[in-house]
Amino acid sequence: MSNRVHNFSAGPCTLPLEVLEEAQAEFVDYQGAGMSLIEMSHRGKHFDAVANEAMALSMEVFQVPNEFAVLFLQGGALLQFSMIPMNLLHNGQKGAYVNSGSWAKGAITDAKEYGEVYTAWDGADNNYTRMPVTADIQLQENTRYLHITTNETIGGIRFAEWPEVSVPLIADMSSEYMARPLPWDKFDLVYGGAQKNLGPAGMAVVFIRKSILENCNKSLGRYLRYDIHESKASMFNTPPVFPIYMFGKVLKWMKAQGGLSAMEKNAAEKAGALYSTIDNSQGYFNCPVEVASRSHMNVVFRLPTETLEQKFLSEATAAGFENLKGHRSVGGCRASIYNALPAESVAALTAFMTDFQNANAS
Amino acid sequence: MSNRVHNFSAGPCTLPLEVLEEAQAEFVDYQGAGMSLIEMSHRGKHFDAVANEAMALSMEVFQVPNEFAVLFLQGGALLQFSMIPMNLLHNGQKGAYVNSGSWAKGAITDAKEYGEVYTAWDGADNNYTRMPVTADIQLQENTRYLHITTNETIGGIRFAEWPEVSVPLIADMSSEYMARPLPWDKFDLVYGGAQKNLGPAGMAVVFIRKSILENCNKSLGRYLRYDIHESKASMFNTPPVFPIYMFGKVLKWMKAQGGLSAMEKNAAEKAGALYSTIDNSQGYFNCPVEVASRSHMNVVFRLPTETLEQKFLSEATAAGFENLKGHRSVGGCRASIYNALPAESVAALTAFMTDFQNANAS
Repeated sequence: MSNRVHNFSAGPCTLPLEVLEEAQAEFVDYQGAGMSLIEMSHRGKHFDAVANEAMALSMEVFQVPNEFAVLFLQGGALLQFSMIPMNLLHNGQKGAYVNSGSWAKGAITDAKEYGEVYTAWDGADNNYTRMPVTADIQLQENTRYLHITTNETIGGIRFAEWPEVSVPLIADMSSEYMARPLPWDKFDLVYGGAQKNLGPAGMAVVFIRKSILENCNKSLGRYLRYDIHESKASMFNTPPVFPIYMFGKVLKWMKAQGGLSAMEKNAAEKAGALYSTIDNSQGYFNCPVEVASRSHMNVVFRLPTETLEQKFLSEATAAGFENLKGHRSVGGCRASIYNALPAESVAALTAFMTDFQNANAS
Repeated sequence: MSNRVHNFSAGPCTLPLEVLEEAQAEFVDYQGAGMSLIEMSHRGKHFDAVANEAMALSMEVFQVPNEFAVLFLQGGALLQFSMIPMNLLHNGQKGAYVNSGSWAKGAITDAKEYGEVYTAWDGADNNYTRMPVTADIQLQENTRYLHITTNETIGGIRFAEWPEVSVPLIADMSSEYMARPLPWDKFDLVYGGAQKNLGPAGMAVVFIRKSILENCNKSLGRYLRYDIHESKASMFNTPPVFPIYMFGKVLKWMKAQGGLSAMEKNAAEKAGALYSTIDNSQGYFNCPVEVASRSHMNVVFRLPTETLEQKFLSEATAAGFENLKGHRSVGGCRASIYNALPAESVAALTAFMTDFQNANAS
């Protein structure tokens, strides 16, 4: 469609156009049922098929081994910040956290309400411009898990290498979900909000190692128990029907594009194009992140002055590039280039950046 | 549309056709923005307007006084079963619950994890065929609130009169939300899932008395704190964008229909037509609920034999009446006649019931 803008939003964000058009076509009358999918009982045959397909495809596309179950929950990644320690930390056990920025800090804040928690590495010391390597991470005795945020949406950093530690990893992957393969044997739980790579807002997708379910804390309200959601295949209560449905369509799109390896390759190429433009600008554009930790999803950059940044953002919007403003807590610019953002949008942006530099020498 | 079925689902359920058609029309390109609403930042101007309008209309249509705040949360009514005692019950305080059936029992189960809880009236003694009157309810000292389920979706019973008690009421209104006015001065908190009268699944709408926020428990994960959601106007984290958007459209539809009084009147008429058909069937159809407690939203009924019930359900489906099967835990038949179910669907069903009786004398 000629009127699509280049949407660099950090989330909710661009979805594949064909997914949107398919959903639109069947929105009022789903497969001739005489009603919309969102009007149907979540225990009926139509939604049952939708949910089962989304679950099966999420395991297939993300290459998740059968030792894991997938859960579709509400409350975003944020509720997981509480549910993880609630369910997993028992008396005498500690939760270790890598403080890699804004989202990691949130996870730590909430976890402290539900158990003994410590920071195993603190990125504040370098203003969150890199991720730790294994040798940086200091684990204490009786640590149940090490929690990492694989990609920080605001700081624009990611783990290039997975930490080699002696405890299970737990990962918030919200902003690079299903954009790279995982060494699943290292993980007990992987989670994230859907509203970046997976579909619309309103759902968290959780992959949990089935063998840890039995030992999860049972003295919790039922919505907060992983074991209950798993035993009911995420249908313990009315699930977020529309996000599940859209997630299923996004998964089919991912699979048709070539699956996880294609997502990873495309992300590396799109990010590479942007970082090259930045690195070849002779310092006009500047990325504060250490090279090894540069995110493939959220590319943050500054211009020589805040005045030029304002001008850049304003002219970019006028030229059809939306949501390039950096997060309000850090300023600057940020291009979020999630799975569904076309390579053409990145090519257009890099051309625009070069033109802007030529027209606005500092 | 000629191919719309009569959808008597208990939820998710029928939505107004014009709401669905409007959402379909603007689904891929929202108001010429070059993107779908579900692709937009939840902090951008478009969604900001959508959320603000839904909040304002929810207060207006439901006639909520300014002493209350409205919150759009995830996790359904089920997560509220935990959040209410977590936030409101302090040491030494008790939560009183009316056990009116399946949903009330769920609320009690979860509350027990977070405080001292007791059953102030137990409907199990009459097999959940009626709601209590004020004199039935036994409150203990140091009771913080009395929790009621204003309408039990499965049992098909509702409170016709509000209990006159000395403690604040808390109400789960999921299955009759915005279908009748409330005496707000009696309530501290009113909540419910959206997926019956308000829109698609994936959201709970909570009205909370602002004066109780300050005293809410702060030692909780942040997603579980009412005060935080209120202070951020439900935008503390990424909200359930699509349900909020659809809720706004449903609210506009309700307002155009005549608002809350029209919803209440229509419900009474639709329910009246069904109960008349049942009562005039000389016992062929039978509603187990005591007359004074009959729900205006979920009309439950039995036929003379289970064989006839199976035949009735099967022929009804073939004739375009969907989802008339009673909940699996109780059997029989149930017609859920929420706000958006057209009166024509009820008229068609009563005619079908009478025809069926004539053709299948017991």
